[in-house]
Amino acid sequence: MVRCTVVGSGSWGTTFAQVLADAGNEVVVWTAREATARSITDDHANPTYLPGIALSDAISATTDLTAALAGAEVVVVALPSQIVREVLAPYAAAVPGDAVVVSLMKGVELGTDERMSQVLGEIWDLPTERIAVVSGPNLAGEIALQQPTTTVVACEDEDVALRIARTCATPYFRTFTTTDVIGVEIGGAVKNVIALAVGIAQGLGYGDNTMASIMTRGLSEAARIGAAVGAQPATFAGLAGMGDLIATCSSPLSRNHRLGSLLGQGRSLEEAVVEIGSTAEGAKSCRSILDLAHQHGVKTSIIAAVVAVLYEGMTVPEMVARLVDRPPRPED
Amino acid sequence: MVRCTVVGSGSWGTTFAQVLADAGNEVVVWTAREATARSITDDHANPTYLPGIALSDAISATTDLTAALAGAEVVVVALPSQIVREVLAPYAAAVPGDAVVVSLMKGVELGTDERMSQVLGEIWDLPTERIAVVSGPNLAGEIALQQPTTTVVACEDEDVALRIARTCATPYFRTFTTTDVIGVEIGGAVKNVIALAVGIAQGLGYGDNTMASIMTRGLSEAARIGAAVGAQPATFAGLAGMGDLIATCSSPLSRNHRLGSLLGQGRSLEEAVVEIGSTAEGAKSCRSILDLAHQHGVKTSIIAAVVAVLYEGMTVPEMVARLVDRPPRPED
Repeated sequence: MVRCTVVGSGSWGTTFAQVLADAGNEVVVWTAREATARSITDDHANPTYLPGIALSDAISATTDLTAALAGAEVVVVALPSQIVREVLAPYAAAVPGDAVVVSLMKGVELGTDERMSQVLGEIWDLPTERIAVVSGPNLAGEIALQQPTTTVVACEDEDVALRIARTCATPYFRTFTTTDVIGVEIGGAVKNVIALAVGIAQGLGYGDNTMASIMTRGLSEAARIGAAVGAQPATFAGLAGMGDLIATCSSPLSRNHRLGSLLGQGRSLEEAVVEIGSTAEGAKSCRSILDLAHQHGVKTSIIAAVVAVLYEGMTVPEMVARLVDRPPRPED
Repeated sequence: MVRCTVVGSGSWGTTFAQVLADAGNEVVVWTAREATARSITDDHANPTYLPGIALSDAISATTDLTAALAGAEVVVVALPSQIVREVLAPYAAAVPGDAVVVSLMKGVELGTDERMSQVLGEIWDLPTERIAVVSGPNLAGEIALQQPTTTVVACEDEDVALRIARTCATPYFRTFTTTDVIGVEIGGAVKNVIALAVGIAQGLGYGDNTMASIMTRGLSEAARIGAAVGAQPATFAGLAGMGDLIATCSSPLSRNHRLGSLLGQGRSLEEAVVEIGSTAEGAKSCRSILDLAHQHGVKTSIIAAVVAVLYEGMTVPEMVARLVDRPPRPED
């Protein structure tokens, strides 16, 4: 039994708390909302984000982050990417000195272009062997129903990765380990942009061949960006790359996917954002990712096309022609 | 303009003939059926396999294979895997001495365990620089509607691959090249077995996480088998690996997928085969592929589980438990 704290009570944070509890651990969830804390502690439910799911008795919740962090051996962070620094920076002293901090997040911080593990390391002054990242084909709703899936736990220290992987393994949640933190995080961030491109194609009425082509060539772009910044290309063929991408692109609930689909149907970015009610992560981070690719001299046709459609006035049919009508060349 | 012959008038053979015609070539299709030959030549249609599609005037058809092969610069073969040797072996002398032979087929020959390019090379006595293989996310029905897609042309001779890739490139059919013929063919064959496993999981009611996990870990098994027999692992992350697998697993029409789904719902193999009306390719080839893996000391949990369910009486819930409820280990 490990004392775990989960910072964030959205659908993935709450579901991961349940996985940790099912794996035999004691879990404290931090949430900003009193009502959510009471639901989780008293009713074993989070009706806002996981309606209909009975949470384990081993999970309690609080709105007091200092109290939530006290005594934690593992601190899992599952907040919206862009608020992590602001919300968590003041609590560096409250993080126990030997706790491992685990990121469930997939964004890139705007302004700094940092990955989430980098942000956490900076604000809490953590050495790399105390930071792990979890990613894979992990749609929260399916895991909450205990449908079988897999995930990857990444930490530069292999033993720590294995310890965290053991801490969250259950009969329905199979865990693998890797030391390629950069690859896992770049895969998660670029995935959102690829899902946007897939959505655009589906909005145009294109089918499974087009989708599969964009996913495969898009992941190849992600792998080339990753290789340029120190990731292992094989990570992108794994659960945090291909696995996560397939689950995301198959899910009709993905915001990136829905936003792309509206663009493919001819809406402007402004109209699509209004219709969805928020900006999808891929729409926020595609320019940072394209910048990163340019800095390292990596060619990224699909990511560049998404940026051109969203921000540079390219029409969707022009985007398709630019991607498909090209002379043969070696696959890479 | 290149004189092309397409041997086989099923949906993929006919669609590829159309791609070749759209790319500016003259195409002769060989078919065993007089009625099909007449439809294609006189009515520019193949109502049995491509209903509703108007074929190009540049395509004609014949039931005379010797006549079809005469003068061909490119000979494309798209027959059911298991009849290639029997049907084509007698025509070795009819194949023009400088023609490149292109396989569109994805099976493994039962009995010999040979890949289709090996079978063609043997029966027609072809050097490797005259044999190419085409594979990718290529569902025929979508290509016939000119929806954008990508493909890989593989030949050990890079210049020949490029020549064939140019011959079949159109504004909706983007071609890449590779010299990894083995990887492209192993990817295509193992894909059918993975699609069967995905079908089983979906038949049980599992969703996108489970599907994505099986596809990713299954492709990793394919890549390890491929590496053991001389393929490049990167090929499996490409269009003939991941791309083809995604298109197949997304299509409700795939026989492997449908067969698996019936097994997942509790039918026996015999019942499922009766219901579908034929045996899916993956059900035929999974034992050959498992043998190949064993011969090279490659561990393949998913392929072994499919064989166990189909032929060794393992129940589907046992299969799932065996795949998911395992201790953490490094991803590879």
